[in-house]
Amino acid sequence: MQDGQSESRGEAPEKTPLVKEIPPKARDLSEWYQAVCYKAQLVSLAPVRGCVVLRPYGFGLWERLQAALDYRFKSTGHENAYFPLLIPESLMARESEHIEGFAPEVAWVTQGGGEKLAERLAIRPTSEVIVGTMYAEWVQSYRDLPILINQWVNVVRWEKRTRPFLRTLEFLWQEGHTAHASEQEAQAEVAQMLGIYADVADGICAVPVYAGEKSASERFAGATHTFSIEALMPDGKALQSATSHELGQNFSRAYGITFAAEDQSLQHAWTTSWGMSWRMLGGMIMVHGDDRGLRIPPKMAPIEAVIVPILKGESSDVREAARDLHNTLRGAGVRVRLDERDALRPGAKFADWEMRGVPLRIEIGANDLRSGVVTLVRRDLEKGEEGAKVVCPAGAVAEKIPGLMDEIQRSLYVQAHAFLTSHTLATSDRDEFYRLCRDRAGMIDIAWCDRTECEAHVKAQTSATTRNLRPKDEGDTVCVACGEPARVRAYFAQSY
Amino acid sequence: MQDGQSESRGEAPEKTPLVKEIPPKARDLSEWYQAVCYKAQLVSLAPVRGCVVLRPYGFGLWERLQAALDYRFKSTGHENAYFPLLIPESLMARESEHIEGFAPEVAWVTQGGGEKLAERLAIRPTSEVIVGTMYAEWVQSYRDLPILINQWVNVVRWEKRTRPFLRTLEFLWQEGHTAHASEQEAQAEVAQMLGIYADVADGICAVPVYAGEKSASERFAGATHTFSIEALMPDGKALQSATSHELGQNFSRAYGITFAAEDQSLQHAWTTSWGMSWRMLGGMIMVHGDDRGLRIPPKMAPIEAVIVPILKGESSDVREAARDLHNTLRGAGVRVRLDERDALRPGAKFADWEMRGVPLRIEIGANDLRSGVVTLVRRDLEKGEEGAKVVCPAGAVAEKIPGLMDEIQRSLYVQAHAFLTSHTLATSDRDEFYRLCRDRAGMIDIAWCDRTECEAHVKAQTSATTRNLRPKDEGDTVCVACGEPARVRAYFAQSY
Repeated sequence: MQDGQSESRGEAPEKTPLVKEIPPKARDLSEWYQAVCYKAQLVSLAPVRGCVVLRPYGFGLWERLQAALDYRFKSTGHENAYFPLLIPESLMARESEHIEGFAPEVAWVTQGGGEKLAERLAIRPTSEVIVGTMYAEWVQSYRDLPILINQWVNVVRWEKRTRPFLRTLEFLWQEGHTAHASEQEAQAEVAQMLGIYADVADGICAVPVYAGEKSASERFAGATHTFSIEALMPDGKALQSATSHELGQNFSRAYGITFAAEDQSLQHAWTTSWGMSWRMLGGMIMVHGDDRGLRIPPKMAPIEAVIVPILKGESSDVREAARDLHNTLRGAGVRVRLDERDALRPGAKFADWEMRGVPLRIEIGANDLRSGVVTLVRRDLEKGEEGAKVVCPAGAVAEKIPGLMDEIQRSLYVQAHAFLTSHTLATSDRDEFYRLCRDRAGMIDIAWCDRTECEAHVKAQTSATTRNLRPKDEGDTVCVACGEPARVRAYFAQSY
Repeated sequence: MQDGQSESRGEAPEKTPLVKEIPPKARDLSEWYQAVCYKAQLVSLAPVRGCVVLRPYGFGLWERLQAALDYRFKSTGHENAYFPLLIPESLMARESEHIEGFAPEVAWVTQGGGEKLAERLAIRPTSEVIVGTMYAEWVQSYRDLPILINQWVNVVRWEKRTRPFLRTLEFLWQEGHTAHASEQEAQAEVAQMLGIYADVADGICAVPVYAGEKSASERFAGATHTFSIEALMPDGKALQSATSHELGQNFSRAYGITFAAEDQSLQHAWTTSWGMSWRMLGGMIMVHGDDRGLRIPPKMAPIEAVIVPILKGESSDVREAARDLHNTLRGAGVRVRLDERDALRPGAKFADWEMRGVPLRIEIGANDLRSGVVTLVRRDLEKGEEGAKVVCPAGAVAEKIPGLMDEIQRSLYVQAHAFLTSHTLATSDRDEFYRLCRDRAGMIDIAWCDRTECEAHVKAQTSATTRNLRPKDEGDTVCVACGEPARVRAYFAQSY
């Protein structure tokens, strides 16, 4: 199984590789990553080039992420809707930067109902075009604003290589689209949604991120400002995990979203869009996993705890106790699984659930039963580490679990945060800057000139680009990369 | 605005008609239906021929239906997953009946990433093909069975005419796909899912349905048995609202879903599929609506209650009281909206929310405030009908609402059930049968021969077809339609 193998094979889809063992994570992150995704049954490669199937365990992760985002979107006044999959070419062409940016990635429908179509239809790579067209129909007066809509959909972008979650021809995401009466309000919306993304990455996925504005060359096609959250992967590459765009009045002008203002003047609306995809799951997997496989933060875990009865011979009383505990925990609202598979020995089950990243394992054996206890094993700690394995009275498990889940969530975040911090490297030395970029040393933090030429030069030399920008510090006078006047601070890194 | 107008206009998409007034429902159901769908902001016509946009209020209905189904799917052991949108033509062609059935409706992607594709890709009209291919990869042993998977997705079928929810080129649905070790188990699954559909139609949408098996000519392409639920619309036409299919071993053989049984023999799995789409919403709208617009059953209502403050001059105390009540009801878990629009007078707001089908209106005026009461107005009853308008102490509203919602839900169901019952017409007279079918008198219930030729004859004469079948009663000896021996009882009706 090699990364990017599909590239050379043209249209022929790969078969999902059979993974016997998970290779060491430190040896080759990409190899480890794909092995984990397949072996943990998160995804399979589909019989269509560039596409994956999200299997139930992987979809369980997506459902957790969806719920966390959807709750926050609705709490901030957004509603869900659904816009069509197909976009007529002529409509798409009206915003010229947008079509230029996306045209090379578009899949085209040219035949339908047994006939050749008069006009090609694009499968949406994103929906600003169709949303803008509808908003033009729906908005007449300032009273119709703001419009705050989100949709959960599939999109298609014609990618050559497949990496589960990170890059696929079709992917699932949410895309928010809003229209406002003023630029200020649109800016506040974009900032709010960026904040929600950072909150969900940090607080739910336990993936610390840097939030900031993208440079001009990394901006969304048709946007006036693009903001992102960026996470750091264990190989020193950054993963853009969500974006939030100010579209200014570009799409309003192209699609005619006008409104009568309070003073009766006719104005163009200010629009925004923002999106997070299943890519976030890929980041979470890479950040937390280890040589044993996945480690899923409890708030994202489809299964928070698994009960493994240690059955020897008959042990019907152990089985009975395990089932009782299973019912008790389910009743207490814990997402718990009871593993009664007869064909596997306990050790094999332990390894299987560790590989699948379940935060907590609960073992019950005959001795435990006699003593009225169970053994709790945490996935976030190393074997033998203090607290990794504790004995707990069987009757106290249900009330202990919520606190334990919080602890595991926090512990995974702390580990990831320590990595990000220790790999965020500020420098004011030009040679060191280029070396660190080239070495993929992490998030390389410099005073920067904010010039496209400078960024292009760094990219040519090191493959690194700006990840995002923030206001410069006092004392930042010259660009570390080129010596021109500094205008901002920027994180540079190679990116996924 | 005429039904089917888009048909004659080829590829040019219609604009959403501006609806000033809802026409009488009894005059022309189709005209009434489309007017309601647009005016209540459930849908807009999209700038792509044959497609609609599901607006937030319409999507709110879909979210309620999704939640009701998803809960029941998960409670019966099913998990969600996601399979790709695109299906290679060669893969699709492996099940010959299936491809024959669907080929005329397929939209084909022939270009991607700037290049002509070596093989056309179908946009899924349904996913048996790709699911079957994956199940073949995932299933080795009887221990891997059953697989119980559902997905919530968009599908495309190249339809010529557009009617919101009922018939669109792209639509949203769920499709369940399961694989089993025995035919018996697959049969039980199909029956279970049909039961869930009937339960949701009846209990959540308040739409009574008949559940039964489809005749051979109405069977899903590739299925051995198809079952459906059928609702009766006010114009006497039936609406097929969900289907559940036994696929036998057809797809297992075509896609190679084999497993080692307990006795080590290699066997083909038995598969099923079942689906309900947003079409159910169209049925619900037609069944319950009246001349004032929508009437939404409380369990499906995105907004259960709307508070309309009767503001005269300042009335800041009325406004305050309305806000307090809004907070109280929200805190109590009621899906409640406060209408503070300044540009509309109370009467206009009443008509607006009635048109949008909100089950309960809560009015607060200055007099009410002084007396410590509010006025509750039910949408399910006619104006002036007993109980339609009641005065309630302001402090008792929160605790009164759940009971009221149950009552309204039940009252809508009772009205719909009375219509279905009074329009279910059993006959043993051949002439009367043909006349009733031709007149669209409702569900015409006869002893039937179960022959395709007979059904084709009835269809040619009356446009009616079998809706679904059930075991014949004692005394059913001859087919009412043709005089051959009776084998079943069947409902005949013209269908949507």
